[in-house]
Parts: sequence; C-alpha cells; structure tokens
Amino acid sequence: MAKETGYTVWAEPLKDFCTRVFEKMGVPLDDAEATSDVLVLANLRGIDSHGVARLKRYVDGLRDGVMLARPKIEVVHETPTTALMDGGSGLGQPVGVRGMQLAIEKAQKMGVGFVAVRNSNHYGIAGYYSLMALEHDMIGISTTNAAVLVVPTFGRDAVLGTNPLSVAVPAGGERPFVLDMATSVVTRGKLEVYERMEKPVPLSWATDEHGVPTSDASRVLQNLLACAGGGILPLGGAREEDGGHKGYGLAFLVDILCGVLPLAGYANTIYPKTPEGKPLPANVGHFFGAMRVDAFRPVDEFKATMDDMIRRLKNSAKAEGQDRIYIHGEKEFEVEDQRRENGIPLHPKTVTMMKQIAQELGVEYDL
Amino acid sequence: MAKETGYTVWAEPLKDFCTRVFEKMGVPLDDAEATSDVLVLANLRGIDSHGVARLKRYVDGLRDGVMLARPKIEVVHETPTTALMDGGSGLGQPVGVRGMQLAIEKAQKMGVGFVAVRNSNHYGIAGYYSLMALEHDMIGISTTNAAVLVVPTFGRDAVLGTNPLSVAVPAGGERPFVLDMATSVVTRGKLEVYERMEKPVPLSWATDEHGVPTSDASRVLQNLLACAGGGILPLGGAREEDGGHKGYGLAFLVDILCGVLPLAGYANTIYPKTPEGKPLPANVGHFFGAMRVDAFRPVDEFKATMDDMIRRLKNSAKAEGQDRIYIHGEKEFEVEDQRRENGIPLHPKTVTMMKQIAQELGVEYDL
Repeated sequence: MAKETGYTVWAEPLKDFCTRVFEKMGVPLDDAEATSDVLVLANLRGIDSHGVARLKRYVDGLRDGVMLARPKIEVVHETPTTALMDGGSGLGQPVGVRGMQLAIEKAQKMGVGFVAVRNSNHYGIAGYYSLMALEHDMIGISTTNAAVLVVPTFGRDAVLGTNPLSVAVPAGGERPFVLDMATSVVTRGKLEVYERMEKPVPLSWATDEHGVPTSDASRVLQNLLACAGGGILPLGGAREEDGGHKGYGLAFLVDILCGVLPLAGYANTIYPKTPEGKPLPANVGHFFGAMRVDAFRPVDEFKATMDDMIRRLKNSAKAEGQDRIYIHGEKEFEVEDQRRENGIPLHPKTVTMMKQIAQELGVEYDL
Repeated sequence: MAKETGYTVWAEPLKDFCTRVFEKMGVPLDDAEATSDVLVLANLRGIDSHGVARLKRYVDGLRDGVMLARPKIEVVHETPTTALMDGGSGLGQPVGVRGMQLAIEKAQKMGVGFVAVRNSNHYGIAGYYSLMALEHDMIGISTTNAAVLVVPTFGRDAVLGTNPLSVAVPAGGERPFVLDMATSVVTRGKLEVYERMEKPVPLSWATDEHGVPTSDASRVLQNLLACAGGGILPLGGAREEDGGHKGYGLAFLVDILCGVLPLAGYANTIYPKTPEGKPLPANVGHFFGAMRVDAFRPVDEFKATMDDMIRRLKNSAKAEGQDRIYIHGEKEFEVEDQRRENGIPLHPKTVTMMKQIAQELGVEYDL
C-alpha cells in the first residue's frame, strides 16, 4: 500500500505493477518489463515527469490503437556498424532498448555502432539508453524527436520537438558524466508547473501566438493545444544575440538524426492526425550510438583522465553565492541513491491515476 | 594591390599569399596550402574572426616554437572504424584535414569513422572539416576544444573553452545543413566588438571576477587576460532556469571528446605555460566523425527528405517583425557566393598586419 506519509513506494513493486498493466494491454512480458524499467528509472532519478505519471498515456495509446502492443519490430537495413530499425508503431521503450543493444553489439565487434529507429513512440528518458553503454566501457548516445512544441528562431509556429539529447561517458572513481537535456530552454512540464503556480515565466522561455516572447504560461500551453501559433523557445531563447539559433540548430540536428535519417516523422509530420483530428501512429524516431573507449585509448587511462577532468571542474572556484559545481547526471545519481534507500514519492494524482487504471483493467494494485 | 575601395581581395591570391608566408616559416607546401585554405574559407563564409586576421598568431606561434612547422604527425592507435592521432604540436589545420580525411576513408569502408586528435593547435573554423564529408554523401562532425574562456554553471573561473561543434548534413536541391556553433553564448570576438563600441553586453553573456553577471565587456576581457575570475557564459547563460547547465554540458562533452578521449589538454590543462609564464605547446584536441548516409538509407531518398524538412522550416509562419527563417549554414553560403563573386573585404588592420608580416619575412605582398 502507498504509505500515508506521502505515497512513497518502492521501485520493484512499482515496476511489477506497471508490467502487469502493460501485459494486460497485450504487451509481451519482456517488452512490458522493459517499458516499466524505463519508466521507474525516471522516477528513481527524480525525473518524475517521464516516470509512471505517464502510464495513462501509454495505456490510452495502446487502447486507441495508435501504439501497438505486439508490433512487428524489424531491422530494415544493416551494415557491420549501422542499422535502421522499424518499431512497427509499438511502445518506444522496447524498440529503444533493442536499438541501443544493437548499437552496443556492433560497437563490441567494430568499435562503434549506430542505430536509427523509425515508427516508434515516446521512449521515456533519453538517458536510460545512453546509460546502457556504461557497463560496456562505451560512450553512449541517445536522442529522440518528439511532438512539435518548439519554434525555430524567427518563426511563429512550433515545428520542432523539445528533441532531447543524452550522452553518457564512463568515469573511474567519479560518477559517470550523463548529459540528458532537452534542446529547448525548458520542457512543457516546466510551463505547466508555472501555470499551476500562476507565476510568470521568464521571457526567454516561450512565445505567444504572434511569435513574441510572453510570460504567460497558460496562454502558451493553450496556444500549443490549439496549434494557434507560438511555443517553447530553443535553448538560448528568441534572439540570435543570446544564441537562440544554436538551440534551434541542436533541435534541428536531433530531428535530422531521428526523423530524416530513418524516415520517421520529422518537423510537423510527426504525431499526424486524420483530417477529422483522430491521432494516427506517431512515427517517432530515435538515434542511438555506442563507441568503445578502448577504440581510442586504454579504458583505465581514459577513466583516470575523466576523473581528473571532473575533479578540476568540481574543485574550481565557485561564483558568489554558490557552493557547488555540478557534473551532469550527478543530481540524478544522488536522487537515485536516496530513492533506492527511501522509496519513490508519488504525487497523489499519480496514485489516483494508477488505481483507476488498475480498476479498469482488473489488475491488482498492491503498492 | 588591395583596392582603395575597402581592401577587397580575391580568395586565390589571398590563399597564395598565406601559403608563401607559411612556407617561409618552414611549413611544407601541402600543409601551408591546407592551412591557407581553411583560413580563406573562413573569410569567404563571412567568419572573418577565424580568417586571415589570425595569420599573425600562427606566424608568432611558429616563430616562438609553440607550433612546429614540420611536426611528426602520427596515428597512435587505430581500428577499422576509429583512430587516435598525434599532431606533434604542428598547426591545427593540416592535422585537422588529415584527421577528417581518415574519418571519411574509414566511413567509406566501414559505414562510419571517428578520429580523435591530440597535440594540435587552433584549427580554424570547425565547419571546414564537417563540410569535407558532404561531397562523399556523408554526415560530417567536427569539434575542438580551445583556450579556457568559459565558466561552468555556478563556477567563478573559466575552466572550459568556447568549444565549438559543427555537424554538416547533405541535402538535395536545398543547401546542406551546416551547424557550426560555439557552445558558449558568444565568442570572445563578440565581447571585443562590444568593447570597441563601448556598448553594454547583455547580462546573459559573461560574468565578472566574482562570478556575477556583468554588462562590462572590457572588465570581462581584462579579467580573462589576467586569469582574475569570471568569463564567458555557456549557451543558456548563468542560470539553470534558462538552461545554462545545458550549454555547460555541451562544452564539457566537447572537452571529453577532444581533450579527455585523445589525452590532449582538457579543462585548464590546455594552453599550459611554464612557471615563468612562457607558453608551452597548446595541446589542443579535435574530434572528427563521418557517417555514410547510405549506411542507413539510400542517399537520394534521404536528400529528398532533407529538402522537405528544410522547406517545412523555411516556409513555416514567421514571428511578428520577421520575414525569414534561416537554415544553419545558409547565411554563410550566401556570403560565400557573394564574396567569390565580388571578393573578400579585409579590415584595414588585417591588411597592415599582413603587409608587416610580408616585410618581416621577405615575402612578396601582391594583393
């Protein structure tokens, strides 16, 4: 049972519950487990927006047939170092895991491996897949395109996704470097938080229906839903002066690798709808990469240098009012330690949603 | 002769002049030509800060012995898909070209190729090398670390470079996508421009000696010279709220690929000096990648999709007050067309500098 004190649950039973839900929706056990593992790792690492709070979206997608429970996943084209996979409109997580595994296998044999995936769906946190490379002493790369929410520099309409990019790099005594970032200034979830607090957002975050920066989160979110113009700004904001075109370029690059290269959806062709507005399969694309460290330099030497690099950053002087410099992934590793020890706090709304799903599907809810 | 009307010169004689200068400094003809070609392409593409205006720095480096005219360039470690090269403290451009060529050769045989380079110097514009991949219908990647000018999020001192990243992607009827961006908000050159204009810089650009955002470009530049603290901010600025930690993460990633992976200089170990303050070889590192498009999907189909992607972006609605959405590289291609047609306008200071070098070295100045 979710404890009275804040609905704190343990990772394993939470994962088991999600697995039962996915199985009930017709997803094979292996795929159900893979999907649950990705969702719960997001919660463990403190990225709750991408954790089990999303369970309903996947259940709805499977129920509505825009996500297939038993997709035909296939390797469409393959070379010793690359592959193009088709996810068959299934859940993003199982094909994501297979895609990254294939990149790792190719890297084991050839030094490096890259896999592009089309015809997939939301795959959860990008970092899940890049992290998979670490135990093999490889640098892992994971990126995906996403629903259009982001406006290009000087554009009025959202034609790009928040298109996250993750790169994980092993270290020795220090924790690995795990970059996992949306290429936009913020994600939609952040705007929703400000909307709930009725707090103005910085003008560097989003634009209104005229393409003009606005502090009104509610207006931006409504416009996005209505495709009325405006959206989230790329990293760097609206102006070239602040490098907004760089964030736009990174989002574009992610869409090239994940959308154009495998011929998944790209720009505003992702998440298509019928003329009547009924959602069609999303055709999300992903791109995975793995590079063996020892294809360049002995692993132990590399890790020692990484440790030194990390320490030089962390030990360098702090700005006035700051007492700590973070390495990417560090905050998430600390939350993970804490949540593996003390459990995952779930938002009451998430608990209600899960209980409702359990009831609807006739799945036992024992958290 | 440089014409009275603004010192406009043609690319070829400018390249020939630079080549003669490098040869006079003891650089072999091939390497001299390679270096000149990189410099002049920067001018042709309108990136004058990285063009022949830098000639003096290279001449000084060669004269002072921190750059070697005839370095021993070697492949230290190699696999069918990867290589680690040592630039022998020579000019960055010749080893940069060889590194990228090797990545392309490996990609021709194996689908993808990656080359890390250590013991090099400033290699000019990152985009020169990524562009090399296009004629082979490959995606080209080029990145380098650089002198420390950039402060990490919450840090006071500069411990990272502006660490540029370039990715070039072929298109069909449309011009290729050529991202070529510093991972900082701006480059030092931009601060210098504002300093000359005595114009305050946006607070998102740089911090003072306390690590606090400042609008005083002159103070930032002086502090950087004196290593007194403060510096240029990563893309996204000083605050996590605006994604500054993302720009910091990108700069960090570039330093991992270019510094840590090949064991070049990294963090504040790049551009070392003797205890007396005399510069030692800079030990700059680069990282190059090439990926065959047809290792994933037929080239013609890919290019058609790229064209469609580009057109969807360009044709999407414009923000109020804007009449054009740009694709990365587009502005530079337009300047290049114009300058190949009409010549390269040189700043009077650059002409004076080149004439002085010509006189000192006894090289004919015929521009």
